[in-house]
Amino acid sequence: MIGKYTEELLKETQENFIVPAENVATLLYSHPLEHALLILSKVGYAKIPVLDTEDHLVGLIGLSDIVNKMMGLTGFEYRLLEGLTVADVMEVNVPTIQHEEDLEDILHLLVNGSFLPVVNEENVFRGIITRKEVLKSVNHLVHELERRYTLEPKKVEQVKK
Amino acid sequence: MIGKYTEELLKETQENFIVPAENVATLLYSHPLEHALLILSKVGYAKIPVLDTEDHLVGLIGLSDIVNKMMGLTGFEYRLLEGLTVADVMEVNVPTIQHEEDLEDILHLLVNGSFLPVVNEENVFRGIITRKEVLKSVNHLVHELERRYTLEPKKVEQVKK
Repeated sequence: MIGKYTEELLKETQENFIVPAENVATLLYSHPLEHALLILSKVGYAKIPVLDTEDHLVGLIGLSDIVNKMMGLTGFEYRLLEGLTVADVMEVNVPTIQHEEDLEDILHLLVNGSFLPVVNEENVFRGIITRKEVLKSVNHLVHELERRYTLEPKKVEQVKK
Repeated sequence: MIGKYTEELLKETQENFIVPAENVATLLYSHPLEHALLILSKVGYAKIPVLDTEDHLVGLIGLSDIVNKMMGLTGFEYRLLEGLTVADVMEVNVPTIQHEEDLEDILHLLVNGSFLPVVNEENVFRGIITRKEVLKSVNHLVHELERRYTLEPKKVEQVKK
């Protein structure tokens, strides 16, 4: 469990950590891989979310997923992407969260992914929580904590509880 | 400044956060881009360090740096990489640190980069510090802090100091 004061400091500089959907580059699962390659080479993110036509989150796709499909016998060949779509190479069953206020889950899940998609109860994509935004708040926490509070070690029996 | 107890907890589960050089995929600045593309499509990291023949850190290279070079008038063409080396597309002047115990610097620099190269005073590459390892320690910190310590708000005059 995250303590009350710790959580307050983590949330002090930003109410939540969401980069809203309208500011996130995404692809449709039906997009041709040639288009996906163009988008991914331009956005500067290693992976981006994949949606269906009703904005449900269906997966993630990264530049390396596409480049690997281009590998032919004598090198990389663009024409190997012909006829393929995002759905053919995207990563599915990705972890998501619904409750962006749940710092405990967010901090755990961000150990293994550089961002975390946020969805509503119908799995509609609402945005992402990035390591970058969380690390900004971690900087605030570690700088302010002992400036604002005196820390007193608890007695052993209190800690065990 | 990071307080004493905060820093102790952050460093409790791992002495430092370095992934040592021998466990990090790297490229030589003189490697052909065709080779770099192969390595980067396989390693699963968006960017990796670039070294010279004496292990000095000279830059970083990412998959998107290479894919962008393949963009021709009618699509992506592998042959556009011919004759080019890592040095032609790598990112230079990247932030590094020498003192892996300096948590303050590390936490700040990791807001803007997913990893941070560690070098010695001769700029020889020693390893990387990743957001992943730091976030593991942040999880430990936020869970243990108020389990072990009682936090007492300081008086206003103490905080201002």
